[in-house]
Amino acid sequence: MQIAIVLYDRFTALDAVGPYEMLCRTPGAETVFVAEQRGPVRNDTGSLALVADKTLDEVRRPDIIVVPGGPGQSGQMDNETLLSWLRTADASSTWTTSVCSGSLLLAAAGLLKGRRATSHWLALGGLAAFGAEATGERVVIDGKVITAAGVSAGIDMGLTLVGKVAGDEHAQAVQLLTEYDPQPPYDAGSPQKAPAHLVEEFRTNNRFILR
Amino acid sequence: MQIAIVLYDRFTALDAVGPYEMLCRTPGAETVFVAEQRGPVRNDTGSLALVADKTLDEVRRPDIIVVPGGPGQSGQMDNETLLSWLRTADASSTWTTSVCSGSLLLAAAGLLKGRRATSHWLALGGLAAFGAEATGERVVIDGKVITAAGVSAGIDMGLTLVGKVAGDEHAQAVQLLTEYDPQPPYDAGSPQKAPAHLVEEFRTNNRFILR
Repeated sequence: MQIAIVLYDRFTALDAVGPYEMLCRTPGAETVFVAEQRGPVRNDTGSLALVADKTLDEVRRPDIIVVPGGPGQSGQMDNETLLSWLRTADASSTWTTSVCSGSLLLAAAGLLKGRRATSHWLALGGLAAFGAEATGERVVIDGKVITAAGVSAGIDMGLTLVGKVAGDEHAQAVQLLTEYDPQPPYDAGSPQKAPAHLVEEFRTNNRFILR
Repeated sequence: MQIAIVLYDRFTALDAVGPYEMLCRTPGAETVFVAEQRGPVRNDTGSLALVADKTLDEVRRPDIIVVPGGPGQSGQMDNETLLSWLRTADASSTWTTSVCSGSLLLAAAGLLKGRRATSHWLALGGLAAFGAEATGERVVIDGKVITAAGVSAGIDMGLTLVGKVAGDEHAQAVQLLTEYDPQPPYDAGSPQKAPAHLVEEFRTNNRFILR
């Protein structure tokens, strides 16, 4: 089983590494970071670089595709090299997945038409514009397509997917090993729970980046 | 403000990237990945590499130190270059922090003697051997030292620290932006909650790695 995690300039690091950490111990699986070119790919703040070990061309038929989001997603919406790779890879994949605004890239590739899907809460409107049924849920499974909400939701998506490909017991072992027993110090992780003025500020500025 | 995240061979990726994603948007902060040498550093499974942008020598007085854990921690316990750097950096840091078995490196550097601290649940015994008061809590604050439990606990630690250095409102904005409203699909994230046979298997094999 081959798991391909797609990188592009200005992705959000946790979007990629959250599901990676859940999926990378799947028995018999090879997990590989891919991008148009091999080498370091910088994230949205520029202070982190993850290495793409293979090019998109070198990984044509992954069993699982993971597309992270991030501010850089907008710059990829008309990147036909990436969109065409997504279409081809999806044609033979077992699971096609995204985190955060990564679902907009799946949508731009035409893969979410008529499907239920989710995205970062600030990006749900964009998703609907591509003919997807946008929901505010944290993890949405529609057929072989799994989409996750913003950034940290990729951890929940990844663990859900581990359960599907390696069984509940392995998923529980991964959860135990990674001590995924979250205890956030605040309760502001969704637009329903956060202080209204913060939600409003993000909506007004449509800011994905804080600094 | 400078935030240094330490990398070494066979670290666990989410240990580093979890707190990174929370901390990297702190106003006025520079976040930098450091290692003995510049360049890609491979994680515990070998399928991920994060780039160290600066050497330890180039970052002598960070305001915040973050030390991730992982199977590679054991190989660093007598690395005097790293331990000496930790001691020097801690002497002028505002906050010295760790995730998972990273606390064993702080302990080996002599920084946890007499302090309350935590670690991965499989590593708590090792911590006590260095004269720390090991607790099973998820995030432990003792003076300027903050330690986190295994892997994903670094997210909770990072967000806690963001609140301390940038205020509660900024921390809530980060939580909202990263949609950190966890909904794990299983409830097996601690030895108290996971199926007993899984806990026992990890304890017997003392395995940090599943494959």
